[in-house]
Amino acid sequence: MSVITIERKVLEKNDAIAGRNRERLGQHRVFALNLLSSPGAGKTSLLERTLDELGGKLRVAVIEGDVQTDLDARRIARHGAPVVQIVTHGACHLEAQLVADALDQFDLAAVDCLVIENVGNLVCPAAFDLGEAFKVVVSSTAEGDDKPLKYPAMFQRAAALLINKMDLLPYVDFDVAAVRRNALTINPALEVFETSCRTGEGIPAWCGWIQDRVARLRG
Amino acid sequence: MSVITIERKVLEKNDAIAGRNRERLGQHRVFALNLLSSPGAGKTSLLERTLDELGGKLRVAVIEGDVQTDLDARRIARHGAPVVQIVTHGACHLEAQLVADALDQFDLAAVDCLVIENVGNLVCPAAFDLGEAFKVVVSSTAEGDDKPLKYPAMFQRAAALLINKMDLLPYVDFDVAAVRRNALTINPALEVFETSCRTGEGIPAWCGWIQDRVARLRG
Repeated sequence: MSVITIERKVLEKNDAIAGRNRERLGQHRVFALNLLSSPGAGKTSLLERTLDELGGKLRVAVIEGDVQTDLDARRIARHGAPVVQIVTHGACHLEAQLVADALDQFDLAAVDCLVIENVGNLVCPAAFDLGEAFKVVVSSTAEGDDKPLKYPAMFQRAAALLINKMDLLPYVDFDVAAVRRNALTINPALEVFETSCRTGEGIPAWCGWIQDRVARLRG
Repeated sequence: MSVITIERKVLEKNDAIAGRNRERLGQHRVFALNLLSSPGAGKTSLLERTLDELGGKLRVAVIEGDVQTDLDARRIARHGAPVVQIVTHGACHLEAQLVADALDQFDLAAVDCLVIENVGNLVCPAAFDLGEAFKVVVSSTAEGDDKPLKYPAMFQRAAALLINKMDLLPYVDFDVAAVRRNALTINPALEVFETSCRTGEGIPAWCGWIQDRVARLRG
């Protein structure tokens, strides 16, 4: 029994479907982000803040990935964005086919930016391309500053890192400079933003980055 | 290609090895815990506190599971406990064979309690029995209070829940009563401890629980 061969076949099949998703998104000039983090790093809260900040400027759609519930999709829907929930029923990551099915639910001609919130997991989702333009990793100050070293694959493959929950900095042992240094050693091209959904710190800079990328795609 | 069949075979093979681990630990009356959480919930800090609290009372050995580094094993070794590091090189969970290999490195006759710190991941490790007596799940107040609902498998299979980083409670939105209620609905047998490695809150109660279980095993 060759599990490694099976895994490679699963990834190859996934990558082929991701390629088709990318092509489809490209036809409609939709800028797609794959948002990744540990459980509880604050992806959904960041997304809520992002939707409010970009309201009236960009048309943002959301795909929510969760193991079990649709709690996050309900939170997103309150902000007026079109949202599709994928429940993986125990699976630890999103796959390209699930995203392909979700894309059928949107009017892509009316979307500038698609954010795919992956399952909370710093390991498995790194291996699965969904057809996004960029992966974005969120790491919170409450998680400790060793995450880039301990989960390097995620940081290698991301275009941006959001150091989130900056408001907790006075109450936790977290060396922002060390995280930046370690993350940039692994991936020198990484854009780093320091954010807080409580204070709003860094949200305009992060949303400015999104707007800039959308403008490049549409310019 | 039947991925589901392969996965079932992987789990069956794992369970058989886990059974042999359990038998081996039982012969030496070693009480074994499988410690599970998101990345950054504070497993290693809890373990450091636990080792200090139980020093001179119980002989505790540690297996550290990590995706990439041996940072955690180095932290544990400073507390004088025998420790073996397993680096999974990208894999998202520990498997029973890795633990079997690690057990060869210990003098089990000189161990009362073995703590296996799993890879930081709230999804995949839930499915893999390692031969432990109990699974223990750690969830931090900084992660949000929706985790039992969103990752039910982990909470269903655990014997104890440590609500950690209680010192951050004034600075985060976290409803302790709701987490207790939701976790106990999923698993009414769950023992719940509220802990903080900064203040030491709950550490004696948690360590008392371990001592009680070891006494039962050895009595």
